[in-house]
Amino acid sequence: MRKLYVANKNYSSWSMRPWVLMKQAGIEFEEVMVPFGEDAFSPGSQFKRTIGALNPNGLVPVLVDDGLVVWDTLAIAEYLAETCPDAQLWPVDRAQRARARSICAEMHAGFGSLRSACIMNIEADLATQGALIWRDNAAVRVEVARIVSMWSELLADHAASHADGMLFGRFSVADAYYAPVVMRLTRYALPVPAEVAAYLKRVEALPGVKAWVDDALAERDFLDFEEPYRLGR
Amino acid sequence: MRKLYVANKNYSSWSMRPWVLMKQAGIEFEEVMVPFGEDAFSPGSQFKRTIGALNPNGLVPVLVDDGLVVWDTLAIAEYLAETCPDAQLWPVDRAQRARARSICAEMHAGFGSLRSACIMNIEADLATQGALIWRDNAAVRVEVARIVSMWSELLADHAASHADGMLFGRFSVADAYYAPVVMRLTRYALPVPAEVAAYLKRVEALPGVKAWVDDALAERDFLDFEEPYRLGR
Repeated sequence: MRKLYVANKNYSSWSMRPWVLMKQAGIEFEEVMVPFGEDAFSPGSQFKRTIGALNPNGLVPVLVDDGLVVWDTLAIAEYLAETCPDAQLWPVDRAQRARARSICAEMHAGFGSLRSACIMNIEADLATQGALIWRDNAAVRVEVARIVSMWSELLADHAASHADGMLFGRFSVADAYYAPVVMRLTRYALPVPAEVAAYLKRVEALPGVKAWVDDALAERDFLDFEEPYRLGR
Repeated sequence: MRKLYVANKNYSSWSMRPWVLMKQAGIEFEEVMVPFGEDAFSPGSQFKRTIGALNPNGLVPVLVDDGLVVWDTLAIAEYLAETCPDAQLWPVDRAQRARARSICAEMHAGFGSLRSACIMNIEADLATQGALIWRDNAAVRVEVARIVSMWSELLADHAASHADGMLFGRFSVADAYYAPVVMRLTRYALPVPAEVAAYLKRVEALPGVKAWVDDALAERDFLDFEEPYRLGR
């Protein structure tokens, strides 16, 4: 049985990707929650010891399938796509698949300003902080503009082909990969055009995303290092 | 015909990956050199206009195959693996393939301290700077330790299975992906154990790597923003 090691659902944007991917695609797995704790990123922390025993770089998520350890979200997505071909995790068309992989890889190594300024915090209403970031942080505006143009183009290209209204028509790795970006755009209330706002709503309504968000809302951990904008909840 | 858009071979570590991958694996392609120039990363530069017309994020490398644009090294590697199955770019064994993808994805988003302190500069002898970095930069030491342990484990696991002595026995995406790390470790002369030093030598001796290095040495561009340690060559 597949086991997916994840950290706090409210905060762990990387954990969210493969969890939502499997949940939404109907791939069975067992979740293993390894909370960050106050000292997650110190060497020797409970978190680092637990994850480090599986994956030497000490990061979540980690997928363990019958003893095989696969780490890093993109490698996990490729492994699942190979081992669960019926789930059609990537677009079936080769050119669209290459495009989907391009935008996922772009996310994997990019959007650093958005990720550090608008840290994922599903439970929080950070609209005021979002407005300040939008006013003052030009790099965030550039990155959001890139995301908006990428999504608008994909949504327009696939609008006719599939009623689900995901980035490639049908749900794929790409939507799971950008789900944490959806969380950031909504919680920080960053301005986006109508077609993108509608996509945000559709992603939030996916059962796999709702299940993650519900779990996140039920968590009670408050971690200072994940909360640059609040003293408590 | 496949076209691969790359930038200066002396400096562009991301360009190096798919170029070496295709060259070493015998996949035919046409190279399109788009030099960075002095102002590469300014909006409106010649570089940004040329690459941005293909790939909206404005970064090299970009692969164009019969009009299909694939960007980002990992997406390019997956596309080539799919379209050139005979080249066996990933390990044939599923578990080893998952492991290879894990370490490539780890490289894709990681090793930020090594990458920023030891910027790739193939033509330069930066041993003195390397010794200072090694003395003063603990994060670089941690990242190199991770690379050394990853490589040592892989080399030991595959030593018996294949005479080529690459990370997964036979040459694969993983070796191409880490080739720029080989350039950094050698040019900055960072200390590594004997089995890793032997792997560095084997990678430098690959015809695909030698061809890239020869081209890099023939370049005469000197770009201040890629040269934090020198005033000229």
